[in-house]
Amino acid sequence: MLSKRWTSFIVFQLLNGPMRFVQIEQSLPNLSGKVLSDRLKELEAEGIVSRNVYPETPVRIEYSLTDKGRALTPILQEIGKWSSEWLPVPEAQQS
Amino acid sequence: MLSKRWTSFIVFQLLNGPMRFVQIEQSLPNLSGKVLSDRLKELEAEGIVSRNVYPETPVRIEYSLTDKGRALTPILQEIGKWSSEWLPVPEAQQS
Repeated sequence: MLSKRWTSFIVFQLLNGPMRFVQIEQSLPNLSGKVLSDRLKELEAEGIVSRNVYPETPVRIEYSLTDKGRALTPILQEIGKWSSEWLPVPEAQQS
Repeated sequence: MLSKRWTSFIVFQLLNGPMRFVQIEQSLPNLSGKVLSDRLKELEAEGIVSRNVYPETPVRIEYSLTDKGRALTPILQEIGKWSSEWLPVPEAQQS
């Protein structure tokens, strides 16, 4: 489930707290709205993300991690550690 | 890279030490020889697994984790913890 492209990046963003669709989209520039929408639906179906609708005008919709989602934190942290130690820094980012 | 089907299971098996092709194959009954062969080649190309040829008669070939491969251990452990806590036990395994 974490293996689908972009899924772990989306979960990683939501570790900071609830976010609106457009905020997630802006935080991951190369991710299309269509893919983001699909991944959020999958994450919701897996019980990793919850979709919260606030009956305001205009309506406010936020996505947040469930407990099951937040429990992924150690996995993402270990992936981050391994990647920074073992994966080459992409050329563009090399100072 | 870990996301490809079977890859993390193969790496997980090799945590116990060097193994021959047929030993890995036997330890993962639902995995075909073709897929195992492909995944081992990919893991070798990624520097996660090394293929050791011993010039005996018949020749002996063993696969083992590199340092980069062994460094995946914490990720696999965290995935194991998360899965056992959050994923339902498949019916067949329920006692």
